[in-house]
Amino acid sequence: MSVRINFINPFGTPVYNNLIKETLLSYARPDTEIVITNTENCPENIDYYYNKHIVELVVMEDVMRAEQQGFDAVIVGCCYDPGVRVARELVDIPVIGPLEATIMMAPYYGHDYVLVTDHHKAVPYLRDLTKLYGGPECRDVTCIDWWVTDMIRDTEGVAKDAIAKCRKAKEKSRAEVVVLGCTIIAASMEKWLIDTKAPRDETILNTNTFALKMAESLGDLKKQGLYNIDRGGYYQKPQQRNGSEFAEVRAKFGRPSAL
Amino acid sequence: MSVRINFINPFGTPVYNNLIKETLLSYARPDTEIVITNTENCPENIDYYYNKHIVELVVMEDVMRAEQQGFDAVIVGCCYDPGVRVARELVDIPVIGPLEATIMMAPYYGHDYVLVTDHHKAVPYLRDLTKLYGGPECRDVTCIDWWVTDMIRDTEGVAKDAIAKCRKAKEKSRAEVVVLGCTIIAASMEKWLIDTKAPRDETILNTNTFALKMAESLGDLKKQGLYNIDRGGYYQKPQQRNGSEFAEVRAKFGRPSAL
Amino acid sequence: MSVRINFINPFGTPVYNNLIKETLLSYARPDTEIVITNTENCPENIDYYYNKHIVELVVMEDVMRAEQQGFDAVIVGCCYDPGVRVARELVDIPVIGPLEATIMMAPYYGHDYVLVTDHHKAVPYLRDLTKLYGGPECRDVTCIDWWVTDMIRDTEGVAKDAIAKCRKAKEKSRAEVVVLGCTIIAASMEKWLIDTKAPRDETILNTNTFALKMAESLGDLKKQGLYNIDRGGYYQKPQQRNGSEFAEVRAKFGRPSAL
Amino acid sequence: MSVRINFINPFGTPVYNNLIKETLLSYARPDTEIVITNTENCPENIDYYYNKHIVELVVMEDVMRAEQQGFDAVIVGCCYDPGVRVARELVDIPVIGPLEATIMMAPYYGHDYVLVTDHHKAVPYLRDLTKLYGGPECRDVTCIDWWVTDMIRDTEGVAKDAIAKCRKAKEKSRAEVVVLGCTIIAASMEKWLIDTKAPRDETILNTNTFALKMAESLGDLKKQGLYNIDRGGYYQKPQQRNGSEFAEVRAKFGRPSAL
Amino acid sequence: MSVRINFINPFGTPVYNNLIKETLLSYARPDTEIVITNTENCPENIDYYYNKHIVELVVMEDVMRAEQQGFDAVIVGCCYDPGVRVARELVDIPVIGPLEATIMMAPYYGHDYVLVTDHHKAVPYLRDLTKLYGGPECRDVTCIDWWVTDMIRDTEGVAKDAIAKCRKAKEKSRAEVVVLGCTIIAASMEKWLIDTKAPRDETILNTNTFALKMAESLGDLKKQGLYNIDRGGYYQKPQQRNGSEFAEVRAKFGRPSAL
Amino acid sequence: MSVRINFINPFGTPVYNNLIKETLLSYARPDTEIVITNTENCPENIDYYYNKHIVELVVMEDVMRAEQQGFDAVIVGCCYDPGVRVARELVDIPVIGPLEATIMMAPYYGHDYVLVTDHHKAVPYLRDLTKLYGGPECRDVTCIDWWVTDMIRDTEGVAKDAIAKCRKAKEKSRAEVVVLGCTIIAASMEKWLIDTKAPRDETILNTNTFALKMAESLGDLKKQGLYNIDRGGYYQKPQQRNGSEFAEVRAKFGRPSAL
Repeated sequence: MSVRINFINPFGTPVYNNLIKETLLSYARPDTEIVITNTENCPENIDYYYNKHIVELVVMEDVMRAEQQGFDAVIVGCCYDPGVRVARELVDIPVIGPLEATIMMAPYYGHDYVLVTDHHKAVPYLRDLTKLYGGPECRDVTCIDWWVTDMIRDTEGVAKDAIAKCRKAKEKSRAEVVVLGCTIIAASMEKWLIDTKAPRDETILNTNTFALKMAESLGDLKKQGLYNIDRGGYYQKPQQRNGSEFAEVRAKFGRPSAL
Repeated sequence: MSVRINFINPFGTPVYNNLIKETLLSYARPDTEIVITNTENCPENIDYYYNKHIVELVVMEDVMRAEQQGFDAVIVGCCYDPGVRVARELVDIPVIGPLEATIMMAPYYGHDYVLVTDHHKAVPYLRDLTKLYGGPECRDVTCIDWWVTDMIRDTEGVAKDAIAKCRKAKEKSRAEVVVLGCTIIAASMEKWLIDTKAPRDETILNTNTFALKMAESLGDLKKQGLYNIDRGGYYQKPQQRNGSEFAEVRAKFGRPSAL
Repeated sequence: MSVRINFINPFGTPVYNNLIKETLLSYARPDTEIVITNTENCPENIDYYYNKHIVELVVMEDVMRAEQQGFDAVIVGCCYDPGVRVARELVDIPVIGPLEATIMMAPYYGHDYVLVTDHHKAVPYLRDLTKLYGGPECRDVTCIDWWVTDMIRDTEGVAKDAIAKCRKAKEKSRAEVVVLGCTIIAASMEKWLIDTKAPRDETILNTNTFALKMAESLGDLKKQGLYNIDRGGYYQKPQQRNGSEFAEVRAKFGRPSAL
Repeated sequence: MSVRINFINPFGTPVYNNLIKETLLSYARPDTEIVITNTENCPENIDYYYNKHIVELVVMEDVMRAEQQGFDAVIVGCCYDPGVRVARELVDIPVIGPLEATIMMAPYYGHDYVLVTDHHKAVPYLRDLTKLYGGPECRDVTCIDWWVTDMIRDTEGVAKDAIAKCRKAKEKSRAEVVVLGCTIIAASMEKWLIDTKAPRDETILNTNTFALKMAESLGDLKKQGLYNIDRGGYYQKPQQRNGSEFAEVRAKFGRPSAL
Repeated sequence: MSVRINFINPFGTPVYNNLIKETLLSYARPDTEIVITNTENCPENIDYYYNKHIVELVVMEDVMRAEQQGFDAVIVGCCYDPGVRVARELVDIPVIGPLEATIMMAPYYGHDYVLVTDHHKAVPYLRDLTKLYGGPECRDVTCIDWWVTDMIRDTEGVAKDAIAKCRKAKEKSRAEVVVLGCTIIAASMEKWLIDTKAPRDETILNTNTFALKMAESLGDLKKQGLYNIDRGGYYQKPQQRNGSEFAEVRAKFGRPSAL
Repeated sequence: MSVRINFINPFGTPVYNNLIKETLLSYARPDTEIVITNTENCPENIDYYYNKHIVELVVMEDVMRAEQQGFDAVIVGCCYDPGVRVARELVDIPVIGPLEATIMMAPYYGHDYVLVTDHHKAVPYLRDLTKLYGGPECRDVTCIDWWVTDMIRDTEGVAKDAIAKCRKAKEKSRAEVVVLGCTIIAASMEKWLIDTKAPRDETILNTNTFALKMAESLGDLKKQGLYNIDRGGYYQKPQQRNGSEFAEVRAKFGRPSAL
């Protein structure tokens, strides 16, 4: 029952792939296969919602392609969980967003959490996501004010700033758990922890890892015929209603009708 | 201080434009200029979130074009308020969604409201919007289960079904106000009310009308230099940070860099 | 379709009327007529709830008189929105409170807001109002600790204190928008902005202006026969049930039966 | 340590006093003294908010008079809790509203509650009160659609209708406790229970009784010097700031300055 | 109608009994009889939830014994309100927890409250309780970081630390009322207030006192046949369904079947 | 990295073990080892909270024993999630409750959920749990009104009643997902689905299965050194503070000090 997972780095460039590879693969089950890909021909950052919106469209296409290629589950590697809920409308394999997955597993680590993300532009959007997702009490959302394109050039700097910010945020909000609301911060800190062999005595959750665990679980259920997602409302599929219209829609907008 | 408003019908076809024209223009202020346009080369319905996502991208481009053409405000004519919040990131003119505008003016009409939309696929999404928007208590969200492409062929049938549903929803939820959570239902009922000269003794709110009133007000404020939207977070503009990147992003994705 | 609006300064004295006149009239539409009046024979401040309660009774009478005099809408010029919801029970023209109007339009300016009012006595009451109104997330309510009778003697001092407090409140609460929860603070700051020609680069909302815009919109709707407020519950009218009892009630309490 | 309580029937007429006397006095502690009075020269029902507003002003005066006459606590006998929170601003004795008192004691009787009040006009207002008060989960608010002036002429009819409605409301909302959100319904049912000696096997709470128990407790605390209400914000007293202004305010509005 | 109340000190030792006696008895009504007992053969602190769980089992037995001994009401003297809601399932006399009783009476003292408890371990649990109980707005939960076994050796130190913390918590949260979320802190401060005759000019609520007042009220109602608790759901009794099973359950677990 | 999981059936009897075995084991990963045990010397049902409380104490001991025996994770097989959060205080391996695990994974299956449990006594308690857990919107909690001891004698009858109730609950609440809030209902329905090979076209979630998936994931993380639960507050361990006291506490209460 080995599970094949496509981790889609949505940032429109392969430059983040190695960081994810180094920091994620060792936490997979031995029989899990992870393929890390990235979106193409789209913005290389999701710093603004317009970029995010374009990226999401490509993510949706990549998710459909992953299903066609036989993957059992997909992770979209960004804590905006970009395109994740819409993608569930399109495919029959589970689609996992790192933020949602982590928030829902956070209660095993502490009573409530604070969210630390990359820059201030993300803060209000993540406030909305925490409201929509529910889960344990989110006591605050804050950021380290780095842009993702800078992070990849100094992952150690990111890790250090993030740790300092996590401590400060925890003290200020008196939350018990810190959720790293940015996959590149999470990977940067993971890399630093691996490199320095620093002890993991603080409860700071790596959103990539939890996305992986959720993807393995849901991938199992998918293979066992237990991913019987409700298709009567929120996740009703456009293909079911009118397959040819769905193809036309894509063509009309200038996207390849055949994935 | 006359205000020029672009009402963008987002459904990718001009077939709804006349209905809006007939049912909206008479409620504008005498000095308000309304130009009704529609999105092009995109899905002709927003029944699924994938369609919605594509349409939103075109809406954002149309909103940017409207700003360049000197409009003072834009209405996006669908109760998903599609692309509205992201579009505010992109332009300096106010962007109005009919649902948000109506909910925020509903307290003048009654204590709480029930939302009646087109079909069951929209219900969970509108539940989320009412949660994010806030406003007076939303006592329920329900639908008449019509698709928009059928509505335009029988606006009278829509009106009659909607009135029956509004009464039922009001009785069941004991809400005081009914908000019509679909611009085409709202226009169909308006047309029927105009045609039959039926009395307006039920508090059923036409979301197009409230969008218009909100657009006039915000258009005034824009012209008076009072639309000083906060650009430090949620609505921070990508163009401010890196204008050339913004152009490239659009080009890269195959959209015209010059609007 | 010109709209006639009665702005009722509720503070029981004409001393605030000029300040409102100077800071509000220029934001009206050219065809809007605004008449600024004030309550009489009642407390000259609303610093305590007892005062507020008396003032509200006079406001209700003034609102009924405004309707008789043919006004299309009424603004009650205080951010307690004093008597506003009860007054909607009494008349068929829209009654606007500055706080409610501004909160409901705040989402066009930013993701969430902080409320800055006059003194600490108002803070818990405004907390309750923000809970009842709903609207975008209110991240905090705070004050500058001035009494209204002092403000009118030093509007510049008020403006400066308020700006400092707005910045501090925004930083502390990390809200994006500041709503000035006191019409006299709002007018004082407006006057200072006009006098000094200071740039409006901070998103601090003048509650009087938004009340005006809401009044113009609802006044339009009233004139168009679209202010079909629900009379079945919250806003059911006492006059409808028993007109003579309503007159008696007023007489019995020693208020003029004929307005 | 006997406690003297003034039960103010706020309805502007003595016709309800006997009903309260018959149904309340026997539940007082032996050493509690209860004096039942009624407001005068004001509306004789609180069916509309305008009436309520006038009545509240008289209630506040009656509460001040009760303090001067040495009462240890006051109950305002209506489930709108009319004037109760404002009256706490004015006096140093506790002021009890039947609705608030009962909601706060309801958790001893069951997990959640449904509120059954007199007529539909009261429903939205009570919804707001339950939101402001907090307390256990209110699963619904409904009514029997009687006016108070009819009730006093047929208390048995009221009792029977109320019991039927309580059962129906409980079944529909699946609440465990019914709170009678109208003091005259509560007294009518109490009278019927006493007269018929019917078993009290349903958990339907008489709001008068809980107001009495709360008044006895807070009256005790007052006598023991433990009613040290916070005077720094919500309940700050106008008399403290400026005693002569407070007297003038009352005189100016045509109310007796000396109570 | 004198009421007999059993105050159960749940900490498994008599060392706290005198402190409660000294600080509580004088606030009882003259005809109230209070018997202070303590749990036995169980942990002597409730610092951890495991301890709490064991203590709760003994509390439930003590509550059943209190009923058999003819008490009219029981107070469980700890602000975890340990075992209180489960105990209501077992007996027909009211069972009072100090935290719940105080929160529900706090609105008479101010608009909102902050909770000050003993140590940081209790903070998240009390956050949950305030969420479940409802009541007025809880603006924060904080602690003085003392363990109960240290407190009894230095009640004056506790009182002084608690007062300092209350002031700080009030300032930070801007709450109006402080609820002492630990009965031993509350008693220590009461003792200090009595000993020093310090004025009670700060609104800091002694949770023991409010539990007593609530117990007297509910004890009265019990004696009057008005404690008709709902036995259809949350408080349904195991003894009703199967009396012999209930006895066996206790025996099987090694607890005395006869109390 | 094979994971060893102890599924503790908490009902105090082995009679349910086979049902769990038949319906759960086939969904485990091939390398997962599941050992199904049951509590002993405790109540054989959790129909009342008193029973639950006793059972929880035994569950906690069983969880500690499971840790000593080298299990990597524990599932407590009842949807009250009995003793689960307290047990996390005691051990360093993850402790999973079926209800919490399922609610947190429900958003992958639909927008919101309705909870169907065994009997009406459980309903209010589960309402509280859904409030504390958070997660997606719980639109209602309802039950089939069976007792667990009857279920095991007629699992087919349970399955049929549960399916009928799920459909009804879904229609009434308009929720998209049904969560079976009782592990024995869930297993009964699973058995019926396996036996009849009925299609799984309705989104009814088996809480045992989700508990298993969550246990596998957290068991993985535990083995990888990534279960760094926060020990500073809610999950602070009593053993850390005072190991001998912890042993004494257990001894004093008559429980074996050595597990």
